[in-house]
Amino acid sequence: MSNDDVRTDPHPQRRATSLLLSIGAAERAAFFPAGALEDLSLHAADLDIVEPEDARSSEAIALAEIAVVAWGFPRLDADMLARMPRLRLVVNAASSVRGLVSDDFWASGIPLTQAGAAMSPAVAEMSLTLTLSLLRRVHRMDHALRGGTSWDAAREIARAREISGCRIAVIGASRTGREYIRMCTALGADVRIFDPYLPAGDPLSARAGGLDEVLSSSDVVAIHAPATTETAGMIGRRELAAMPDGAALVNTARASLVDMDALFEEVASGRLDAALDVFATEPLPDDDRWRSLPNALLTGHVSGATAESRARAGRIVIDEISRFLAHEDLQHRVTADALERMG
Amino acid sequence: MSNDDVRTDPHPQRRATSLLLSIGAAERAAFFPAGALEDLSLHAADLDIVEPEDARSSEAIALAEIAVVAWGFPRLDADMLARMPRLRLVVNAASSVRGLVSDDFWASGIPLTQAGAAMSPAVAEMSLTLTLSLLRRVHRMDHALRGGTSWDAAREIARAREISGCRIAVIGASRTGREYIRMCTALGADVRIFDPYLPAGDPLSARAGGLDEVLSSSDVVAIHAPATTETAGMIGRRELAAMPDGAALVNTARASLVDMDALFEEVASGRLDAALDVFATEPLPDDDRWRSLPNALLTGHVSGATAESRARAGRIVIDEISRFLAHEDLQHRVTADALERMG
Repeated sequence: MSNDDVRTDPHPQRRATSLLLSIGAAERAAFFPAGALEDLSLHAADLDIVEPEDARSSEAIALAEIAVVAWGFPRLDADMLARMPRLRLVVNAASSVRGLVSDDFWASGIPLTQAGAAMSPAVAEMSLTLTLSLLRRVHRMDHALRGGTSWDAAREIARAREISGCRIAVIGASRTGREYIRMCTALGADVRIFDPYLPAGDPLSARAGGLDEVLSSSDVVAIHAPATTETAGMIGRRELAAMPDGAALVNTARASLVDMDALFEEVASGRLDAALDVFATEPLPDDDRWRSLPNALLTGHVSGATAESRARAGRIVIDEISRFLAHEDLQHRVTADALERMG
Repeated sequence: MSNDDVRTDPHPQRRATSLLLSIGAAERAAFFPAGALEDLSLHAADLDIVEPEDARSSEAIALAEIAVVAWGFPRLDADMLARMPRLRLVVNAASSVRGLVSDDFWASGIPLTQAGAAMSPAVAEMSLTLTLSLLRRVHRMDHALRGGTSWDAAREIARAREISGCRIAVIGASRTGREYIRMCTALGADVRIFDPYLPAGDPLSARAGGLDEVLSSSDVVAIHAPATTETAGMIGRRELAAMPDGAALVNTARASLVDMDALFEEVASGRLDAALDVFATEPLPDDDRWRSLPNALLTGHVSGATAESRARAGRIVIDEISRFLAHEDLQHRVTADALERMG
């Protein structure tokens, strides 16, 4: 990871004179509560706050040396880059940078860093929350009781399982996957892992197995692999069929990893349960088929969006800017090469 | 804990010749899967299986020396005791024995033991499951998406909180409460405890505080105290009002500990969220007011009812019978005095 562009800065002593903060108001307050916003402002002679939807036409962007963005900022294509001639660093407070970058951006050599690491503990906790809910059949019982099913009939719902001693298949020992594994193990689960890229000597290797093997001996399957061309559709019809009757799938990663039609059939038949934070089409249409299944538990792509996660991300943004201004290596830099693996 | 009645058995060498197993079929299979039923039968010359609703009129009960019961067995009053002249031991595979005992039963001196200890890990896990769901607002978002709320509107639901670092007030350091505390602590929560009966020198004392103090500085309040005359209504209108805005209450214990009218008002107003496994009226009526609140998460008094919990209870039943027949002290004996404290 090289920071040559930083090191050859012709004015190495200079602090950023203009910092652009272009994140929508609600999320901006979450990333930078009062004290953090003050910290951020200490790194700039000028701090310009611009709503993302106004950014393209804003005069402030012409002055920006450091841009702190999240969702909704215009793609950094040739046109935007031309409007931001002084840009030296882009910091994405959110995770995915796919909507932000372009070939022209990569060609510019402007460094890009992001705060996705802040989300891992939040996503892992959400995956644990959904895992427990599915094992305990809380979703089925809650849906039944809310839907007017009689108390006695609701109590007939298939026997709950405990996480202690249950078999959990983790697909992808990512940063998030590892955090999820740590928590499940602390609660007594028997965790197995499928990850073809597990480094040699990784302590998790002892719990690794083939995809079919871990799927077929699981009570819960939790997806924690990145969405790449390689992982697209990796949990297909055949893989879902390998899961035991009564097992459940948790997806807080990306819908592209799963054959969502095949999953829908398995859940609609009642053979599998599912908890989904991510969908093939987002926003999820108002009349989407997933919304009416009694044994599906749904959330709106918010696994990473806790109060704590946002505050952590804000700290990462500030720390990365500090490093950049001190000519230190960025800790979370994203390169075009890395992006393909990251998903 | 004295077993004088056992030790003065006039036939100490004799094995129980007749064991009555009177638990409904579905639960019987859960308590005693194939191997366990065989183990149980090894303790008796005769094993009679009688449905609880048929027990009073069954001839088999006249022979029973050991009765293994759960829910629905007739109260052991003077009439039933007269029908069971050879009864020497009652083993309740479930938890609460209030419906089973009578003054005549206590006067008989027949020992009673129960397998409630088997439920503690299950109840604690359920309380954790509900705690995480409330913190992450999973219930609100799932209800919104299932109810046809637009994706964007569902995502506007109040920011989720992580359990790591969150403040949890545990009301009652019972066996279940301690297991819940262990798990929450492993996940990074800041646990405070209210329990006026915490023994001197208990390691949990360092985290104990007054009721108002722990309630007013909590993100989640979890009830794990026994239902006794002393604890009835202990979480009243004033105590609920002490909880911060946006906090949540989890009750997997008994509804009698909480002023359910006051709680309903707090949840209906949206100030507090709640996850309830227990209700003032059970079975919960089909049109009960709790069934329609978007920020309430409901289950049907099943916190202790996991597959693993039932199997553990079955093992306790067998172990207690073994001890009884070997003239060893029962490990889970219930006395009239203890019952008042146990709830």
